Amino acid sequence: MKKLTVELGERSYPIFIGQDLLQNIELLKPYITGTQILIVSNTTVAPLYLAQIEKLFVDYTVKYVILPDGEEYKNLEVLNKIFDVAIANKFDRSCTFVALGGGVIGDMTGFAAASYQRGVSFIQIPTTLLAQVDSSVGGKTGVNHAFGKNMIGAFHQPICVIIDTNVLSTLEDRQLSAGLAEVIKYGLIGDLEFFEWLEDNIPYLLQKTPSVLIEAIERSCQNKADIVAKDEKENDMRALFNLGHTFGHAIESGMGYGKWLHGEGVSAGTMQAVYLSKLLGNISEQDFERIVAIFQQANLPVLPPNAVEMPSEKYLDLMAGDKKVQAGVIRLVLLKKIGEAFVTGDYSPELLTTTLTEYR
Amino acid sequence: MKKLTVELGERSYPIFIGQDLLQNIELLKPYITGTQILIVSNTTVAPLYLAQIEKLFVDYTVKYVILPDGEEYKNLEVLNKIFDVAIANKFDRSCTFVALGGGVIGDMTGFAAASYQRGVSFIQIPTTLLAQVDSSVGGKTGVNHAFGKNMIGAFHQPICVIIDTNVLSTLEDRQLSAGLAEVIKYGLIGDLEFFEWLEDNIPYLLQKTPSVLIEAIERSCQNKADIVAKDEKENDMRALFNLGHTFGHAIESGMGYGKWLHGEGVSAGTMQAVYLSKLLGNISEQDFERIVAIFQQANLPVLPPNAVEMPSEKYLDLMAGDKKVQAGVIRLVLLKKIGEAFVTGDYSPELLTTTLTEYR
Repeated sequence: MKKLTVELGERSYPIFIGQDLLQNIELLKPYITGTQILIVSNTTVAPLYLAQIEKLFVDYTVKYVILPDGEEYKNLEVLNKIFDVAIANKFDRSCTFVALGGGVIGDMTGFAAASYQRGVSFIQIPTTLLAQVDSSVGGKTGVNHAFGKNMIGAFHQPICVIIDTNVLSTLEDRQLSAGLAEVIKYGLIGDLEFFEWLEDNIPYLLQKTPSVLIEAIERSCQNKADIVAKDEKENDMRALFNLGHTFGHAIESGMGYGKWLHGEGVSAGTMQAVYLSKLLGNISEQDFERIVAIFQQANLPVLPPNAVEMPSEKYLDLMAGDKKVQAGVIRLVLLKKIGEAFVTGDYSPELLTTTLTEYR
Repeated sequence: MKKLTVELGERSYPIFIGQDLLQNIELLKPYITGTQILIVSNTTVAPLYLAQIEKLFVDYTVKYVILPDGEEYKNLEVLNKIFDVAIANKFDRSCTFVALGGGVIGDMTGFAAASYQRGVSFIQIPTTLLAQVDSSVGGKTGVNHAFGKNMIGAFHQPICVIIDTNVLSTLEDRQLSAGLAEVIKYGLIGDLEFFEWLEDNIPYLLQKTPSVLIEAIERSCQNKADIVAKDEKENDMRALFNLGHTFGHAIESGMGYGKWLHGEGVSAGTMQAVYLSKLLGNISEQDFERIVAIFQQANLPVLPPNAVEMPSEKYLDLMAGDKKVQAGVIRLVLLKKIGEAFVTGDYSPELLTTTLTEYR
């Protein structure tokens, strides 16, 4: 088992990564202060793991709420179902919410915990690779709004995160690949060595080899934790994680939530950002192909939707509502080179339009 | 004009109290960082003051949203209307929300600001006495849930508060009295001298004499700010503000939101807490009558609803869902004497039942 600490002063918390961790309540006990546990899961994950998790909390008062599965249910209305159960069971401020599921469950449970009685504790048990390497670090929680993704939320750190790689055994291949998009992203934005390690290890990750998974997850979480520790509320550095996300969110939202998985949007969106970086002269044709190759190896889309489905104007309109917009300028994360990203609003608007129209 | 600072480290903010403050944008300018202003008001206050406030922000991009007036609209669904307008107008993270209204508008705008893009700035312009002396200090924001009051929310401090006593000229008498319940509360829990000052000055407050209003508001805000500075997240001392609130919330909720004003519930609820304090031997018959007298002088109810409308079991059930419940025990704020309150879970349950049945 690996233990990694996200350093955030009094909000610091541990991430445990390994096999067979969900049999071990001793790991969690020191972090739980109250006696009431609310497990939040969805219709896909609950049949697989809820019974096991309930058993884990045998010494506590346990209630659960099962939400419908999918990004399209990540809204205020469905969030309210979590409050319904907590209040109906008279859960008090000392209770703990447990997120058992992927990124959507993590984001919703975290925001529910941030808001329930103005803030209770929560534990994350991420069951997708994407949630393990992304939403488990950094405390970003929230729901979507009909007009934009993650528009409503809070920064709320979990009290601990348990990443048991056993749960990936039931994860479908498409979801595993979607998670790899974020893993590859960490290499691209700040860790050339990790990127090169990934170039050699994607096949083992696709085969779910435990030791390789644990290493990839640990290095991803460590990469994210290092930056989050320096910039909890996303003032500058943290924005680097959004490589491919401004384009990717536009694709996800423009195509209708659920059609493109988040990781798929990130993959194609990252390639758009890399294409723009190439137009700027930062990325060579050779490095461009190297990045295409690693996403393709991970069975991820490298091309965005066609011009009929996603015309440039649709991108620009959706991107203008992005959270990274400042004073009307869409700020983009671009690459200086493989292993180094930067945030900028200082690019020629024509280059953005060229990217959106040419790179299809 | 009086200026008072709520001391909360990097979240410190000023409260300005005086006449004719809403003509003066220079007061606000130093606190606003962006260019986008979203004014949130309701159908009662907007016709009276929205035009004036819009004029105040003439140098900014101003949008507004008008919510229906009343505690019954303080829920997630109506909250979403604030997000609708902010997102439709592409408001970014540097925007500022302005709460123009009473406590409901302040709580909802504050929570919307806490959650919009995971946190934007907000300014409070409270237009009721209650909001001026209560919700303007401390950063408690939130909405109600069908099963309980203020169950969903956040701690989110405003960047500044403008209390212009001119706005009280349009406040109806019943609302003014409701505000006085909270003013009297500050005297009862921690400021005997202020309580005695109030015993002499209630008539001038009811007549809305500006200098007396300003003094009462300032002393109330100062009392609250002193405690909030020591206990921002309500771990212990802050709970003292809830004198009368556990009973009062049960009355408000049990009778159906909107029938009893919050301040009316607090008045009757405080008398229930004072009655229980008398049963404990802390409060003499004479002091009990003195407290009855001051609430009556302020035209506030001193008796809770009758046993048919609010049987004891209904209180106990509603109170069990209160945010102050710890490990199943209803913690109450009681008086040691006039000017000194304490929080306790260590009382005989029979005394609580006696209070609920005897004091009607």
